[in-house]
Amino acid sequence: MRTIAFIGHGIMGSPMAVHLQNAGFAVRGVNRSPEKLAPLTAAGGTAASSIAEAVQGADVVCVMVPDSPDVQDVLTGDDGVLAHAAEGTLIIDFSSIRPDVARELAAEASQRGLRMLDAPVSGGQAGAQNAALSIMVGGAAEDFEAAREIFDVVGKTIVHVGPTGAGQTVKAANQLIVAGNIQLVAEALVFLEAYGVDAEAALDVLGGGLAGSTVLNQKRENLLTRSFEPGFRIELHHKDLGILTAAAREAGVVTPLGALVSQLMAAAVANGDGGLDHSGLLRGVERLSGKD
Amino acid sequence: MRTIAFIGHGIMGSPMAVHLQNAGFAVRGVNRSPEKLAPLTAAGGTAASSIAEAVQGADVVCVMVPDSPDVQDVLTGDDGVLAHAAEGTLIIDFSSIRPDVARELAAEASQRGLRMLDAPVSGGQAGAQNAALSIMVGGAAEDFEAAREIFDVVGKTIVHVGPTGAGQTVKAANQLIVAGNIQLVAEALVFLEAYGVDAEAALDVLGGGLAGSTVLNQKRENLLTRSFEPGFRIELHHKDLGILTAAAREAGVVTPLGALVSQLMAAAVANGDGGLDHSGLLRGVERLSGKD
Amino acid sequence: MRTIAFIGHGIMGSPMAVHLQNAGFAVRGVNRSPEKLAPLTAAGGTAASSIAEAVQGADVVCVMVPDSPDVQDVLTGDDGVLAHAAEGTLIIDFSSIRPDVARELAAEASQRGLRMLDAPVSGGQAGAQNAALSIMVGGAAEDFEAAREIFDVVGKTIVHVGPTGAGQTVKAANQLIVAGNIQLVAEALVFLEAYGVDAEAALDVLGGGLAGSTVLNQKRENLLTRSFEPGFRIELHHKDLGILTAAAREAGVVTPLGALVSQLMAAAVANGDGGLDHSGLLRGVERLSGKD
Amino acid sequence: MRTIAFIGHGIMGSPMAVHLQNAGFAVRGVNRSPEKLAPLTAAGGTAASSIAEAVQGADVVCVMVPDSPDVQDVLTGDDGVLAHAAEGTLIIDFSSIRPDVARELAAEASQRGLRMLDAPVSGGQAGAQNAALSIMVGGAAEDFEAAREIFDVVGKTIVHVGPTGAGQTVKAANQLIVAGNIQLVAEALVFLEAYGVDAEAALDVLGGGLAGSTVLNQKRENLLTRSFEPGFRIELHHKDLGILTAAAREAGVVTPLGALVSQLMAAAVANGDGGLDHSGLLRGVERLSGKD
Repeated sequence: MRTIAFIGHGIMGSPMAVHLQNAGFAVRGVNRSPEKLAPLTAAGGTAASSIAEAVQGADVVCVMVPDSPDVQDVLTGDDGVLAHAAEGTLIIDFSSIRPDVARELAAEASQRGLRMLDAPVSGGQAGAQNAALSIMVGGAAEDFEAAREIFDVVGKTIVHVGPTGAGQTVKAANQLIVAGNIQLVAEALVFLEAYGVDAEAALDVLGGGLAGSTVLNQKRENLLTRSFEPGFRIELHHKDLGILTAAAREAGVVTPLGALVSQLMAAAVANGDGGLDHSGLLRGVERLSGKD
Repeated sequence: MRTIAFIGHGIMGSPMAVHLQNAGFAVRGVNRSPEKLAPLTAAGGTAASSIAEAVQGADVVCVMVPDSPDVQDVLTGDDGVLAHAAEGTLIIDFSSIRPDVARELAAEASQRGLRMLDAPVSGGQAGAQNAALSIMVGGAAEDFEAAREIFDVVGKTIVHVGPTGAGQTVKAANQLIVAGNIQLVAEALVFLEAYGVDAEAALDVLGGGLAGSTVLNQKRENLLTRSFEPGFRIELHHKDLGILTAAAREAGVVTPLGALVSQLMAAAVANGDGGLDHSGLLRGVERLSGKD
Repeated sequence: MRTIAFIGHGIMGSPMAVHLQNAGFAVRGVNRSPEKLAPLTAAGGTAASSIAEAVQGADVVCVMVPDSPDVQDVLTGDDGVLAHAAEGTLIIDFSSIRPDVARELAAEASQRGLRMLDAPVSGGQAGAQNAALSIMVGGAAEDFEAAREIFDVVGKTIVHVGPTGAGQTVKAANQLIVAGNIQLVAEALVFLEAYGVDAEAALDVLGGGLAGSTVLNQKRENLLTRSFEPGFRIELHHKDLGILTAAAREAGVVTPLGALVSQLMAAAVANGDGGLDHSGLLRGVERLSGKD
Repeated sequence: MRTIAFIGHGIMGSPMAVHLQNAGFAVRGVNRSPEKLAPLTAAGGTAASSIAEAVQGADVVCVMVPDSPDVQDVLTGDDGVLAHAAEGTLIIDFSSIRPDVARELAAEASQRGLRMLDAPVSGGQAGAQNAALSIMVGGAAEDFEAAREIFDVVGKTIVHVGPTGAGQTVKAANQLIVAGNIQLVAEALVFLEAYGVDAEAALDVLGGGLAGSTVLNQKRENLLTRSFEPGFRIELHHKDLGILTAAAREAGVVTPLGALVSQLMAAAVANGDGGLDHSGLLRGVERLSGKD
């Protein structure tokens, strides 16, 4: 399993593809804007001009695009993976999409003799650059094993969480916790500052106790200095919370905090913060509190 | 500074007093139910029969009681600390109480020539037993330095966060984040289980990414096995969220998630779960989702 | 415009069809369970055995079915209205469905030379029985005028609110206000009872001031006596709030109360209350408050 | 019962006092800013220069001031009512204050041989001007009967809801419903406008169905034209929701919508809208939705 077609070279996909090329795989990149393939070709990879060309003879097809319709296009379009990949090819979809769409696409892939894993990731740009992503994988156990050598290159925590779609379900849960936790820290920080508490010292001690979290560690500087270059963009997190709330509703699970933080994320987008890092939820707390 | 009066020997105070005795301080314990002093006397400490007796000749008075009125009683009652402590005595209040009450009591103490620090802790029963508490300290810098040798015995992360009351303010923020984070993990877990995802595997991968937190580590077993022996009781966390929401309101800081998780904590108390560990918020998610 | 095909004879549709027959129209009913047509035939109407048969020669086709997929089936199925209605026929869809589906179906109807209005109603079973519905109509002004004689028979407040889909948008807004208002009154009532206030006297005075509402008038007895026979079922209101939250999200409008009451409605369904009248939201407040 | 001391001549108190004077009572007004007494004196009433002077020989003392501490000052201060009113005098407190404070003050009054009713009102400035207030009265039945001739002059819906404090409890419930209902209508309106629906027509039809309410009638123009001159000020409604949430918490009643609308009201105050009419909650929906 040495040749990889890699579709989608954005903020996450680009460093992942480069890591795979550097690890000894032959990576053929394809991207809507071909200039984004420069890092890959600089690392010795190949730029393909179409999905058809990229998947020709590839053992594995990796996909890392923004949303459910993008994955649908990439897989089921006329120039798509399903139409051109050889029988037995393994598709690894790293994108974060709707679990039901993941299940549908895997079924279609299966009908064409292809294998498919949903393998959304957590860890953001830093995780992709440092090959330290968490990968939550749904699909057949043997496909998971087959994909292991690829996951090991780009990820640190790699877990097979269940059948097709389960990876996306876990990713939705991940995005609930992350969004909520950012919002909580943001509310806490604005509260502390309003009382004139030393915010840096406070975050130190909060981080050392039961309030400690990866959000508190990784987003500390963003929050303290109000610098919100992404990172992981609010508009993508907004999309993910749409997936979460729809899936929770479908399953009859009541998530009051999930629903409310989804509203606050939507408010961030509506206020023009969609392009900021998700730690920019802090700006919403400031707006609500008249401190913007 | 070798003799300590220690008032309040509950789930937290008892192991803290024992640690101090074991570290070479002479600790005189006093507690409403005197039988709770057994661990201290077994470690070589003394059982006092009144606050007056305990503080007689003590260099430091430590207080660890449940709520604002308890601290007010202990300090300002006829048999209270303020009436009996020698001038210059340092009072360290480890209790979690209202920041405004902390400020009032410190002012009263000061009028009597006493010094006072608010030093609420985070880390729960395990943190107290393992001398690994986070301590958030408000008060004068020189009093903080004087208390350092005591804090070092019972805590791991020890931070001076500002003037009198600031410790309590940070504690309130801590309780907001902790409650919210438990609720988020609970919503995520019920969601994952509804979809038949392998919950243990899912928590593994969630913990490895941006969703990772001390709550996810420390409360994992409680949540997975639905065993909610405290730990930190819901009824105390409910009290703390009352402090948080009142203080945020007072400061004009809007905390939507804080307000909502306060309601859910109140619902837990109203449903008879007040004596459970705060990870028992999970039961509320199950009740809302018809899975209880 | 004298012959009407009426599709859907449930709790709402049945009395509406009877009113139309009694008003002098020739109504041909069709329903999945034909025994539901008994009231119509007793009033002199006709029972058709298929949609094709019902729409044959009808001037107007009225539809009153539960949800978006039902309307899609009724209109676009092989035995559907679009396949069998004569050119120029006016379709009036009284169902409450997604605004985007309403727009799609109207476009399809238009391509077949048919005219279509979305005309969802408010007022519940009582409104249908008393011919006192509020009707919010979207579509062309001339179609609205043409349908007027029908609307006048079944409704009291009849308003043309905009182009195709606008009726459904207003209905979604209606369901937001109604659900929220029921929940508010329920919270208030449980609060008043907890304080031992005379609830009947309290509702009297609340109804006389700025808190007064049709909900307070019409649902008073349901709430005071805890009798929740529908009326308008929670499971349908749950469906409607799904439409509202999706449409608000789509438009970038942030509706915090809408999102939260949607969660509480979902909790009612999850707790087995889906078949109760929507005033049964009160039971959720009691469950949260440990008073069930 | 012909002589009335009337304390507090703001937006509400001033027209109420004038109505009483016009109805044949001898009203002696007292107010912090004495120029506010002009309407009363123009109607033939008397301006007193102190509470002591006003209550001297009065049969009834009416109080209409903003908040709990104001009532406490007016009643228990050195120049206060309790110190100067003759035994048997009936105190009617029209202010909206905390139920527990109402109970405390009534107990103090009773110890001095005075009688006291809590009689908060609903209906706003218009209700006061038109003598059409709703009055929710707590206290002894015989005192309620004695006060009837006064209530009848200023109110329209007058209900004895229970013992001392019950009036304030009902008022708190009233303010929950009103705030929530305004917020719901505001969310609905911003939603409708985002979809380009004819807002006036939509409000017509909403008002005619189950979504109808006094808020929809009375605040319609404020909302449609974005003119938010008070009326009833957001900062007072914010105070009232503080009373509600504290009292609900105290009673163990969970009010999720109440808690959330309290946050949104606090956000309005924090954003400088405290002086606007409470229908100005609409501005908060617009801010959240990026439409301000």
